[in-house]
Amino acid sequence: MNNKQNEKKISNAVIRRLPRYFRYLRELIRNDIMRISSRELSEKMNITASQIRQDLNCFGGFGQQGYGYNVKFLYSEISHILGVDNGLTAIIVGIGNVGKALVNNPLFEKRGIKVMGLFDTDPNVIGTTFGDLTVMDARDMTNFCMDNGIDIAVLTIPKAAAKDTLEVLAETEIRGIWNFSNAEISCPEGKNIKIENVHLGDSLMALCYEVALEKENNQ
Amino acid sequence: MNNKQNEKKISNAVIRRLPRYFRYLRELIRNDIMRISSRELSEKMNITASQIRQDLNCFGGFGQQGYGYNVKFLYSEISHILGVDNGLTAIIVGIGNVGKALVNNPLFEKRGIKVMGLFDTDPNVIGTTFGDLTVMDARDMTNFCMDNGIDIAVLTIPKAAAKDTLEVLAETEIRGIWNFSNAEISCPEGKNIKIENVHLGDSLMALCYEVALEKENNQ
Repeated sequence: MNNKQNEKKISNAVIRRLPRYFRYLRELIRNDIMRISSRELSEKMNITASQIRQDLNCFGGFGQQGYGYNVKFLYSEISHILGVDNGLTAIIVGIGNVGKALVNNPLFEKRGIKVMGLFDTDPNVIGTTFGDLTVMDARDMTNFCMDNGIDIAVLTIPKAAAKDTLEVLAETEIRGIWNFSNAEISCPEGKNIKIENVHLGDSLMALCYEVALEKENNQ
Repeated sequence: MNNKQNEKKISNAVIRRLPRYFRYLRELIRNDIMRISSRELSEKMNITASQIRQDLNCFGGFGQQGYGYNVKFLYSEISHILGVDNGLTAIIVGIGNVGKALVNNPLFEKRGIKVMGLFDTDPNVIGTTFGDLTVMDARDMTNFCMDNGIDIAVLTIPKAAAKDTLEVLAETEIRGIWNFSNAEISCPEGKNIKIENVHLGDSLMALCYEVALEKENNQ
């Protein structure tokens, strides 16, 4: 049984928390902090120390009683579990405002993901360049994905285009979709594509709720 | 006791689910579906019918046995609870790539939030226009917020600028911050500002985990 099979048992809730650990640990490394106790990490992250020990125990637990966690080691283990060092490749589909914000965003590079292609359907956008990438015609997407073994498609297309684009991508070897189209999509039957639907507006609405409540209470 | 005080009892978990109901109900209205049972809503949303009944009961419950929910009424109640119709106002601070993607994004308007001002520190950006808004000097932010009673600041600034900007905003009447700066910020002591930290990369990492695991298992 290899490592990854062991890791498969990690619950989705823990996986959802790992990126936060990843960010905090990166911050610690930047500040040359190489060792940290679960109590200190707990204070920084506002998670109970016992939750931290439980989370990190899920994948073997690297803490030592009275000694704490080796920050670099923990960081590299979490990176590995999250697939950060797996050399995943991506394309961005739809080079409108959100697409542009992502093309130039360091968040892919920081996570070891190589953005290999940009696609759009608009003749005015096709052919424009961003860094060393030129926007290609969306009709060439299938071939490009197959030729380059693309893992992840980032969808920054209008809602109305989501369904058709999903059908096209389903014919490639794409294994993951990061979906900003605001259409709630799910994996086509018989395929095995992980889909992460991003709804920025949901987080804005939760904030609105808090703000509106506060305003009303103060009136 | 007014309505809002009643609503205060709604748990954070429910509040986090309400925007999803909001989106689905809007979709139903668009498709002229005016009545829906918890069973149908359950199938569409992939939430158990009992969870739906429980969630919607939290704020009075508008379903009728064997008759279902009145979609428009439910939509308007959820809008109200979430503060969608409260005429909240916002500014966007930092007109880089992410800022630009948000300036032109209908997500504010859809939620009844009026974006009243754009701010940046870069002389090359100050003075540029987006629709009917002109980017202002960030030094004028405090006065602008006070004069216009701004409720929400959207931070699309670099991480390094987050702390100083938060200090400036804390001196205004801002009640909410939607934070894209990647710096994890929290409300300054003695202030009452709700902060919604957005970490897009976290959702990308959760996707990477799934994709990397799938790749490894198929090798």
